Amino acid sequence: MPQAVKWMDGTDGVLELIDQRRLPGEFITLLVRDTRRLHEAIRTLAVRGAPAIGVAAAYGPVLALQSLGANATTVDGLKAIVEACDFLATSRPTAVNLFWALDRIRHKAQKVCQHPQLTLGELHEAILAEANAIRAEDIEMCRAIGRHGEALIREGAGVLTHCNAGALATAGQGTALSVMFEAQKKGRSFKVYADETRPLLQGARLTAWELQQAGIDVTVICDNMAGWLMKKGRIDLIITGADRIAANGDAANKIGTYSLSVLAKQHGVPFYIAAPSSTFDLSIAGGAEIPIEQRESREVTHLGGTATAPEGVAVYNPAFDVTDAQNITAIITEKGVVENPDTARIRELLTER
Amino acid sequence: MPQAVKWMDGTDGVLELIDQRRLPGEFITLLVRDTRRLHEAIRTLAVRGAPAIGVAAAYGPVLALQSLGANATTVDGLKAIVEACDFLATSRPTAVNLFWALDRIRHKAQKVCQHPQLTLGELHEAILAEANAIRAEDIEMCRAIGRHGEALIREGAGVLTHCNAGALATAGQGTALSVMFEAQKKGRSFKVYADETRPLLQGARLTAWELQQAGIDVTVICDNMAGWLMKKGRIDLIITGADRIAANGDAANKIGTYSLSVLAKQHGVPFYIAAPSSTFDLSIAGGAEIPIEQRESREVTHLGGTATAPEGVAVYNPAFDVTDAQNITAIITEKGVVENPDTARIRELLTER
Repeated sequence: MPQAVKWMDGTDGVLELIDQRRLPGEFITLLVRDTRRLHEAIRTLAVRGAPAIGVAAAYGPVLALQSLGANATTVDGLKAIVEACDFLATSRPTAVNLFWALDRIRHKAQKVCQHPQLTLGELHEAILAEANAIRAEDIEMCRAIGRHGEALIREGAGVLTHCNAGALATAGQGTALSVMFEAQKKGRSFKVYADETRPLLQGARLTAWELQQAGIDVTVICDNMAGWLMKKGRIDLIITGADRIAANGDAANKIGTYSLSVLAKQHGVPFYIAAPSSTFDLSIAGGAEIPIEQRESREVTHLGGTATAPEGVAVYNPAFDVTDAQNITAIITEKGVVENPDTARIRELLTER
Repeated sequence: MPQAVKWMDGTDGVLELIDQRRLPGEFITLLVRDTRRLHEAIRTLAVRGAPAIGVAAAYGPVLALQSLGANATTVDGLKAIVEACDFLATSRPTAVNLFWALDRIRHKAQKVCQHPQLTLGELHEAILAEANAIRAEDIEMCRAIGRHGEALIREGAGVLTHCNAGALATAGQGTALSVMFEAQKKGRSFKVYADETRPLLQGARLTAWELQQAGIDVTVICDNMAGWLMKKGRIDLIITGADRIAANGDAANKIGTYSLSVLAKQHGVPFYIAAPSSTFDLSIAGGAEIPIEQRESREVTHLGGTATAPEGVAVYNPAFDVTDAQNITAIITEKGVVENPDTARIRELLTER
């Protein structure tokens, strides 16, 4: 199982990311030592996937502290942490796990700084411990999601997934793909169709690669083939991840997910979202309030260096869309499964357990 | 307006095709002098689009005659024509216009060969005239489709199209795109969204290029963005071409069309097909009987020379899907428009007018 986000060498360490822009052709790890390079890694999708972005960002303030001079004070340290959080929060707008993780680090720093005798070393130690905790929780959360969802994949099932919600999208074994890995551990055989997921092909490049490595039967399709497979009766269920889920269950995920959910409903195929509780944004009532990142035209008009569209043509390139809660059969979280998600059921799952 | 299929230099001429595999990066014309190269051009999509394939194939038997030796008899000529028709019919399986055009040429040849004194030169002349007639009819048919459909595109409309049903897909000004060209001639402004159309990107490469050349406002999107645009209320109608339409109105077209039709219905967006009467195959009752071409994995896993998926991964790559007649608002033909298409209405349009 690839480790998308690792912290190396303890104190005064370095953040190690798998460069997901290069997969599956090349397996290269990036050593990230400052927040500027971390911001760039998130923005350019070297690290991507809502949980992985959150975990990677959590180490940003740690790197910021390590960049301070020898004479820096604890006050300088707190200032650097807050600045790092503000800066990294501008790297991508949609996945809420990014803001959630940065908030956790900032609060931790502010809390420990209430001790007047705190040294800069102790501040560093405290926020590194918090970042490590976020990463460890993510790993555990992935396994729990898989265990809560695995029974949905029956022997011989056809499973469709979109984009990459695997190990590469988290610190652990993924969200949607964790469900598949746990079903595999139960000895079940099933067939996964991976939407290639234009424009950046995370499905073809990353999901297909992860499933192939794990020995799971995977077939790559173009995004526009999924509806036809449903019509042909070859899809028994769909599982995707999510980048932000509103209080009512409306879920932002990779562009194309909304269409899949409509097609699934039309064909009587259950549509599941697998995501950790950190993906929920209870501060917003519905999906219309989720900001949708628009990315540059070149992602659509070029592949590698090759132009695939005429020069100067207009492009619409939203990175995400929002799936209405009523199109979602259930949301699989580390705390359990919410069927027919709505505001009350989601609140109950997130607060009462 | 590009001319996808041209016959050059009259008797003993040569077939000139725009090499659509190279567009929009390079504009190269292929000079085709024998059936082997014509078969390859069709199979590898140098020439594509159901009507264009039909017109190009019609010239195949003419090229076959021209390849005969100086001592060949009329009997040799008829044999060569029949062999060329049989051979070219194996180039692609779905578009019925291919078989329709080859049948026309074969019947013409068989008919004129009933004259006992017919010379080989006269046979050549007769089938060249028939191929030229097919091409001329195609040009006129394109205009008529456009004129029958143009009123559907209102001032300020958002129009979605899939794949390429433009001049490049015909001998004339296209089918779906002809509707747009005729609406433009009426002075109307509107916005076209062109699905890029994976795997071979005919929408991004060809449709966007044609519309850009014609000065029509065009925006390229990935196929998985179309449903989200419908949800956002930005699509007022969808127009695509078709490769074969069954007697009941079920229509095979580029993979992804079926999903668009389901999404359109769900969002209350009218869904139109524009196609000549030669696209109808009244010999089959419904879409389930239309053979769907499966194409090679490499179209999905590679772009140019670049691998976009892990080596050895399984791929499902159907070139077409079938849209149920009940998802089609109307079929726009050169003979008129069939609303809510079904067996009776289609038969009426094709036989009574």
